[in-house]
Amino acid sequence: MKRTAYRLADIASRFGGHVLGDADTTVNQVATLDSAQAGQLTFLASGKYRVQLAATRAGAIIVGSADADATEIPRIVCDNPYAYFARVSAFLNPLPETVPGIHSSAVVGEGAQIDSSAQIAAHVVIGAGARIGAGSVIMEGCSIGAGVTIGDDVRLYPRVVVYHDCVLGNRLIAHSGVVIGADGFGIALDAGRWLKIPQIGRVVIGDDVEIGANTTIDRGALDDTVIEDGVKLDNQIQVAHNVRIGAHTAIAGCVGIAGSTTIGRHCRIGGSAGILGHLQIADNVEISSFTLIGKSIREAGSYTGIFPFSKNEEWRKNAAQLRHLDELADKIKMLQQEVEVLRRKD
Amino acid sequence: MKRTAYRLADIASRFGGHVLGDADTTVNQVATLDSAQAGQLTFLASGKYRVQLAATRAGAIIVGSADADATEIPRIVCDNPYAYFARVSAFLNPLPETVPGIHSSAVVGEGAQIDSSAQIAAHVVIGAGARIGAGSVIMEGCSIGAGVTIGDDVRLYPRVVVYHDCVLGNRLIAHSGVVIGADGFGIALDAGRWLKIPQIGRVVIGDDVEIGANTTIDRGALDDTVIEDGVKLDNQIQVAHNVRIGAHTAIAGCVGIAGSTTIGRHCRIGGSAGILGHLQIADNVEISSFTLIGKSIREAGSYTGIFPFSKNEEWRKNAAQLRHLDELADKIKMLQQEVEVLRRKD
Amino acid sequence: MKRTAYRLADIASRFGGHVLGDADTTVNQVATLDSAQAGQLTFLASGKYRVQLAATRAGAIIVGSADADATEIPRIVCDNPYAYFARVSAFLNPLPETVPGIHSSAVVGEGAQIDSSAQIAAHVVIGAGARIGAGSVIMEGCSIGAGVTIGDDVRLYPRVVVYHDCVLGNRLIAHSGVVIGADGFGIALDAGRWLKIPQIGRVVIGDDVEIGANTTIDRGALDDTVIEDGVKLDNQIQVAHNVRIGAHTAIAGCVGIAGSTTIGRHCRIGGSAGILGHLQIADNVEISSFTLIGKSIREAGSYTGIFPFSKNEEWRKNAAQLRHLDELADKIKMLQQEVEVLRRKD
Repeated sequence: MKRTAYRLADIASRFGGHVLGDADTTVNQVATLDSAQAGQLTFLASGKYRVQLAATRAGAIIVGSADADATEIPRIVCDNPYAYFARVSAFLNPLPETVPGIHSSAVVGEGAQIDSSAQIAAHVVIGAGARIGAGSVIMEGCSIGAGVTIGDDVRLYPRVVVYHDCVLGNRLIAHSGVVIGADGFGIALDAGRWLKIPQIGRVVIGDDVEIGANTTIDRGALDDTVIEDGVKLDNQIQVAHNVRIGAHTAIAGCVGIAGSTTIGRHCRIGGSAGILGHLQIADNVEISSFTLIGKSIREAGSYTGIFPFSKNEEWRKNAAQLRHLDELADKIKMLQQEVEVLRRKD
Repeated sequence: MKRTAYRLADIASRFGGHVLGDADTTVNQVATLDSAQAGQLTFLASGKYRVQLAATRAGAIIVGSADADATEIPRIVCDNPYAYFARVSAFLNPLPETVPGIHSSAVVGEGAQIDSSAQIAAHVVIGAGARIGAGSVIMEGCSIGAGVTIGDDVRLYPRVVVYHDCVLGNRLIAHSGVVIGADGFGIALDAGRWLKIPQIGRVVIGDDVEIGANTTIDRGALDDTVIEDGVKLDNQIQVAHNVRIGAHTAIAGCVGIAGSTTIGRHCRIGGSAGILGHLQIADNVEISSFTLIGKSIREAGSYTGIFPFSKNEEWRKNAAQLRHLDELADKIKMLQQEVEVLRRKD
Repeated sequence: MKRTAYRLADIASRFGGHVLGDADTTVNQVATLDSAQAGQLTFLASGKYRVQLAATRAGAIIVGSADADATEIPRIVCDNPYAYFARVSAFLNPLPETVPGIHSSAVVGEGAQIDSSAQIAAHVVIGAGARIGAGSVIMEGCSIGAGVTIGDDVRLYPRVVVYHDCVLGNRLIAHSGVVIGADGFGIALDAGRWLKIPQIGRVVIGDDVEIGANTTIDRGALDDTVIEDGVKLDNQIQVAHNVRIGAHTAIAGCVGIAGSTTIGRHCRIGGSAGILGHLQIADNVEISSFTLIGKSIREAGSYTGIFPFSKNEEWRKNAAQLRHLDELADKIKMLQQEVEVLRRKD
């Protein structure tokens, strides 16, 4: 594919910032400091990469104002180099063009309304009464349940499943293997056996959400499961029924969120973390990877609960004592009393 | 959709319990205490929701006998309100009707036996010699391997994969993305390289099992992997080869169970827990979320191993000491000896 | 299916080792010590199974030289019984024969090159310009993106998705639900909102790799994500963008590996472990199940960080003290000083 090249001057006039060095320098792709070549644009997101900066062969670079003079390379100086880079990269790497229409192998249910600018790929099934918005792309093998509403400019990668009646906002991106709206894990004990609780809520997803591969978001038991605007979910996350995730929260891979928990806005949750059910997590909370949150968090801040790893033998010794930590604490208390007695006598 | 309304008297005559208040009150849907409206039936599963009870606008409510007088709302009094609610909800929210027949885009292998009352949706593939029981629904895009046996009234949601020769019991529900019978992780080291061990066992699943979205159950290496009757598995669980899960055990999302482990009956396993391989877990064992079970459990009871989370700075200090816990224990022992010496001298 | 039987003499002449006992004994299948019958071949991988050995009814057995005389059963004596067993099992359990050709329901993009010996099953989609090597089998419902390169003798089980431009080596096995090349989790904060960073790298996979069901491997942000030769990945593993996994490393189920981490060769990683991003893990490192690796590991060896489980009440007491471990350490230090003062006075 022939790539189109752009002058730094053109990029700056489109995305802001100002150019230092030769503004006629052209670039046609973005790349890392290490791998960028002539004709490619890289970025310096943080001063800690200055060593790589010295060695880069990039044709041009995006830098913050603090680093405006850190290099001689033709450069665009801006406030937020990483965000700037994101915008330029999206500009240089447009998605494949949408090809409106419905593939002959797709199966469309009665009363479904598919915008004429939407693309429905091979082997897609769209249930009765579903609606697909303008410019949306439903890639091969997706399954859209009856009564589902999908907004505009949505992109569902191959083999996404959306169960009946769910609502997906505009510009949603869902990667392959995502399952939206499967039944939540609702069961009631009845004389030692489990009865299924019908899951009659929906999943309602706001605008500008992205969902990673094989992530699952269960429908609500009675009320809805809600993902607010701008939420970003990585791969293999499990969102249980009636969870609410606040706007602009980002969650890394393999996190599990149990039922009826509400997570605030602008939170960041590390990979493989877990959050128990029926909890409230405040806005602007950061949760470390591999941390289980077992109580509500009312206050913004960073929270962690990780067993520090070590060489096997060390771990074994420390873990063995951990099973006796309460006794150790008792021994310390007793020692304190005894020492106090000795001091008084002294 | 027009919903059918039922009198409380009708419901009680069908499901038991007795009505207090106006038995002619009609309901057509279930809802939570918070969101229920006139014409809707809610439930009080536990006394701790009495605050919501006071505010509910529900048309009727299911309560236990202890709460029979806790409200004036027309109510059904029964032994187990949550189970009762499950039954009424299933009655008010029937599954879509099965439409027997095989979609023209489905591909059916030689010698497959599909009951005439079963529904085979679009883009399904059914392997040679497979059998599908009466009333079963195989939704779009499912893949059923050669020689698979599927019981009656089974429901496979879109894009479930069942590998060859597996056996699925009656009334199984498997949600989208479930993979049953993929190869277990059997590898043998041979001079620094891994040789694959063919996985020639099957997965055998009993009656009344439910399996959540994107859960994987591997086929046995030589003997079978077995899921007994009434087991309920949430989403994104990994069940390795030759595991056996006892009847009526319920497992929450993201749990991993390593190979050849046997889990008893009526166990409950919390989300993101793990169980190492070749272990025996007794009946009626409860395992907390995020807990790794590294030894067999011979005795019923509740087991936990979670690092308690805290604010980052606190965690850092405590975790640093944890790496020296064995030394701390030594210091305590030494202090005890020294104090003992001082006391004797005293 | 009629199985072909082989004499031990034939097997030994094909795979090495020497026969003790009747070399004309025939076997047609492998089985465990416990379940093997006459006509079946079992193996003794370790002396700890000698109890089962005494009770086995197997027709023949594979043993190491140390166990050559541990039984009277006709036997093949070899250096590595488990690897030998793997080879014989593969020989006795060949994969279904490949049926070259493209199913009529498959959709093949412009310029795709599919070797005439490859098998493309029903409802497969192959993107423009993709290449499929000799003897490869793409099972039903797989989605192969534009420009993907797939080597020879690859087997993709039903419903595998490979995004555009990824490169898969020879003899890859990928199980159902695997997603290769979805976008990595690249987002940049811009005034409280997340901007998507286009993921323009690829996934490049070497030869002889196996990938378990529902495992996800993200494409690189700018450079590639790389899986080297002989890597074995179990189910539900998450491999983030720009990870590199060294040759012949084996990773158990549910592991999460964050972005830009490099894992060495011949490593073994236990189930549900996690590795943070931007780390270096040396060759020959073993990581225990459920362990989070938060720092680079420069030295071969075994590493662990697991909170030991116990009965609930015990755990609660110990965990409560863990939140005060730093204070406990301070108390010990103070006690040491006080005791020292008392001793001096003494």
